[in-house]
Amino acid sequence: MRPYPSLPLALTMGEPAGIGPDVTLMAWAARSAERLPPFHVVGDADLLARRASRLGLAVPIARVSAGETGGVFADALPVVDLGQPVIGEPGRLDPRDAAAVVASIEGAVEEVRIGLASAVVTNPIHKHALYQAGFGHPGHTEFLGDLAGRFAVPADGSAWRPVMMLAGPDLRTVPITVHVALARACAELGEERIVAAARIVAEDLTRRFGIARPRLVIAGLNPHAGEDGAMGREEIDVMQPAIERLRSEGIDVRGPLPADTLFHARARATYDAALCPTHDQALIPVKTIAFDETVNVTLGLPFVRTSPDHGTALDIAGSGKAHPGSLIAAIRMAAAMSGAA
Amino acid sequence: MRPYPSLPLALTMGEPAGIGPDVTLMAWAARSAERLPPFHVVGDADLLARRASRLGLAVPIARVSAGETGGVFADALPVVDLGQPVIGEPGRLDPRDAAAVVASIEGAVEEVRIGLASAVVTNPIHKHALYQAGFGHPGHTEFLGDLAGRFAVPADGSAWRPVMMLAGPDLRTVPITVHVALARACAELGEERIVAAARIVAEDLTRRFGIARPRLVIAGLNPHAGEDGAMGREEIDVMQPAIERLRSEGIDVRGPLPADTLFHARARATYDAALCPTHDQALIPVKTIAFDETVNVTLGLPFVRTSPDHGTALDIAGSGKAHPGSLIAAIRMAAAMSGAA
Repeated sequence: MRPYPSLPLALTMGEPAGIGPDVTLMAWAARSAERLPPFHVVGDADLLARRASRLGLAVPIARVSAGETGGVFADALPVVDLGQPVIGEPGRLDPRDAAAVVASIEGAVEEVRIGLASAVVTNPIHKHALYQAGFGHPGHTEFLGDLAGRFAVPADGSAWRPVMMLAGPDLRTVPITVHVALARACAELGEERIVAAARIVAEDLTRRFGIARPRLVIAGLNPHAGEDGAMGREEIDVMQPAIERLRSEGIDVRGPLPADTLFHARARATYDAALCPTHDQALIPVKTIAFDETVNVTLGLPFVRTSPDHGTALDIAGSGKAHPGSLIAAIRMAAAMSGAA
Repeated sequence: MRPYPSLPLALTMGEPAGIGPDVTLMAWAARSAERLPPFHVVGDADLLARRASRLGLAVPIARVSAGETGGVFADALPVVDLGQPVIGEPGRLDPRDAAAVVASIEGAVEEVRIGLASAVVTNPIHKHALYQAGFGHPGHTEFLGDLAGRFAVPADGSAWRPVMMLAGPDLRTVPITVHVALARACAELGEERIVAAARIVAEDLTRRFGIARPRLVIAGLNPHAGEDGAMGREEIDVMQPAIERLRSEGIDVRGPLPADTLFHARARATYDAALCPTHDQALIPVKTIAFDETVNVTLGLPFVRTSPDHGTALDIAGSGKAHPGSLIAAIRMAAAMSGAA
């Protein structure tokens, strides 16, 4: 990874009733110890001031315009205030906050688009709260995929296609199917889906992570990768043809390999990212070995987006129990990824 | 766990063409450093002598009858020779060896049944080689379940029912479905299957591991344990009723819980075993954190059986590259489990 960029990172506010404000304040308080690059929050400055007071954190809040962050960051947490005060308090969702939560995401992406921020780091949102207010996207990542439509289309004329990657200190995994029932994931695992995901992973590992020739592995869907068809034929009928196509395009990819022996230290040293047919195959290993340092990275977008890999944790918001490790890792990774652009 | 038992452990020979003989010799050579309890091999003494010579290991082989192991173990690797010399050499399977491989398993189980050995530790077998020779069981564990029929039936009059558990130094997991295609696993995950597996795990954690009141957790089948039915209904329709039945029987069990956040250090400190709907959900976390120390334990049998959690590794047999860590852990666990009986 390259040096940090000079533009600040834009952090979204996330769900006001969750731990996003808590970990944002904690991350700023740790800016020197953790040597974090300058960032600002896009959202409600008063929310952050209230939360700092509640948590007993001496974090001055400075209202800024996006261009001023660099000069302020050492002394105060800069906030690009959107003029939409939020109501939700720790643990208490309020559907009237949905518009401000959405505006924060849009604002952060827009800052990157017009060159005022280097990357977007999103705090967790509460999907159900947004659904109640009419939010029409299945999730955070899909919404960001939609906002990508405001950027120029990809060089090949296709649409932007977000791909979720989980990144810990020494393991990166990509679920090929994500938030669908497992039975449906088995049915949806098609050749095109595998090829499209692997292409994006290979391209972004080069473009965003500076890896000249990324080494990919693909886990099998079935136990022992199907054992030559004895336990499922998806490896033979779907995955092998996808892998052959990817190889013919010059992508360095091995598989399908048994998922259970793919993630121990010696195995993970042999590749740069592992693509997995199912959500749990990808998320279990990363979170098992690096729960507090795992970062959710969205590949396949025209901008860099990272996120801590935890939810809103409504039950501990405002209590001081939240752990800023994943947000700190997300901030650091967003900076490194945009520096490599 | 309690002190080691005074009876020796019976190790099966496993596939002669694989790494079983290699790691058995290495484990014996490490008996003092690893403070291993006495064990003998049930099988072909000449095979072990040939392999020791090939590997350059100074391991004297002593033909014994089962009762003599204790007096011999310090100075030589005791072998209860079955008088069935094997032919297979490292990496070269020979179907004529199938009968000897099967006889070794039967012999080891019989020793436990008649009180000459405390537990069975099985070396890896090569299923396809056995199938070619007419072996009629889906796998090793199912064969052992069949041999359990030679013992008295369980107290409740039912049949013995083997349940696979993977045990690392600080994590035990149980796949509820095992060696079936994933789509079939989704369909086969029924209430009865969950209840039966959890009962056996709870009972054997007490009986074999000395845990007075075992704490179980059960992972969801779907991502995020289905998120209240948004991504699959198995948690609501199948798993929740199973868990309620288990609780009504006095078993301490929580779930269904999202699998991806169930295995990091803080989470796994809260339970004694995690049951998982699919093979990979159970095997990925254990093998990711403790690849060389993971032991395959069969619960639900009238005898203790452990096994290293790796295959025959035909490609490295006889080369000295095999790692005896998992067999050593299996030997130690078998001794502790039978000492606790």
